[in-house]
Amino acid sequence: MAIRVLLCDVFGTVVDWRGSIVRAGESLAARTPVTTDWGRFADRWRAGYGPAMNRVRTDELPWMTIDSLHRMILEEIADEHGLAGLTEAEMGWLNRVWHRLDPWGDSIGGIERLRSRFVVASLSNGNVALLTNMAKRAGIHWDCVLSAELFGAYKPDPEVYRGAIRLLDCAPDEALMVAAHPGDLEAARQVGLKTAFVPRPLEHGVDGKRESPPEGGSTYTANDFHDLADQLLGDLPEE
Amino acid sequence: MAIRVLLCDVFGTVVDWRGSIVRAGESLAARTPVTTDWGRFADRWRAGYGPAMNRVRTDELPWMTIDSLHRMILEEIADEHGLAGLTEAEMGWLNRVWHRLDPWGDSIGGIERLRSRFVVASLSNGNVALLTNMAKRAGIHWDCVLSAELFGAYKPDPEVYRGAIRLLDCAPDEALMVAAHPGDLEAARQVGLKTAFVPRPLEHGVDGKRESPPEGGSTYTANDFHDLADQLLGDLPEE
Repeated sequence: MAIRVLLCDVFGTVVDWRGSIVRAGESLAARTPVTTDWGRFADRWRAGYGPAMNRVRTDELPWMTIDSLHRMILEEIADEHGLAGLTEAEMGWLNRVWHRLDPWGDSIGGIERLRSRFVVASLSNGNVALLTNMAKRAGIHWDCVLSAELFGAYKPDPEVYRGAIRLLDCAPDEALMVAAHPGDLEAARQVGLKTAFVPRPLEHGVDGKRESPPEGGSTYTANDFHDLADQLLGDLPEE
Repeated sequence: MAIRVLLCDVFGTVVDWRGSIVRAGESLAARTPVTTDWGRFADRWRAGYGPAMNRVRTDELPWMTIDSLHRMILEEIADEHGLAGLTEAEMGWLNRVWHRLDPWGDSIGGIERLRSRFVVASLSNGNVALLTNMAKRAGIHWDCVLSAELFGAYKPDPEVYRGAIRLLDCAPDEALMVAAHPGDLEAARQVGLKTAFVPRPLEHGVDGKRESPPEGGSTYTANDFHDLADQLLGDLPEE
């Protein structure tokens, strides 16, 4: 079947969470007495994300949005990063940095080109309000904001991928999951979706870890969203 | 509380279902032997919509999308409108006319102006795929596509309004329900939302019925989406 729908992972794939958090931290440091290694802070915050979601996925925690999970992790790491002196308003502002992540340079233009042929939706563990606010601020134009929140399950649980194709009324192999992370793509492939691996070598910083391609391969591999558009639209590469 | 989020009814409020169906019918008549009074056909099809939804709302029918309900009603009225000779492909094309409804002339520009200040989402009984396809084709830019389908309930059930403000993370009175239909606005008001009545006197045709304002009043009354933007943005009316 021909692809009709693109489902895009967001954190790391479309937006640069690490760089955005570092910039927010530096902005906070300029206005308050707090100071820390914001790169390490971003890494620690993000590192708490998978385990926290797994506590929801295994029913150790009730359903919580990513906003709530981010806040829980932030409280846990606040002391070691010298953030104990922040006011509640500053903590709330910092927690909502995930609503204000900046896209990689190719994301907006590439997604816009892809929208000329396909229905292009987010499919993120971020909650709907987070994804909506982020897209509005960044200028990302989704045809539809889809979130794990709509299904009460987190990726890589198969319910999330199945729920997305049900809502967009397409067969599994009419959908292409686009992500920088092999686990996301492997899970999508097991549900029958096509997959596109878009590596983001700077996701974890200049010297950070690089994600490996999915072990089972992927339908497409692209350097960025423009390269993906070149491949899917069958155009010559842009001059 | 200040308004942060606009929730817009779609059929009749943003798009002209009757005119769009008439045009689709005429296009079908030009390519096939079928002929009927397409205005009456549109009215009959739409008239079946409320009762069909009520059968879902009262659990007489299991959950069905609007696409399925539209198809069920279409089958029921096909004979009396001389559509029995249509092929399955033609019936499917006709049923999906609800994905291809054209907006009123002010909708796209007015919504774009409103997006400059507010999160603007659909809140329709139309299913997610229908709303997504319609917006993409028509060029309507929603910050977020919200549908009754996400809540397994149809407007005017309160779950739909409550679900929308939960997903967009706002208090009831930070949300403004925008609709051409008093029943929709009354139900939103009972959940604590602010309301904007945007009458669409041509919704049911030149000589068709006109909707009355909500009995309990509405926070705003606007002639169209540009008038609503004038009022909410506090601008002088456009020259």
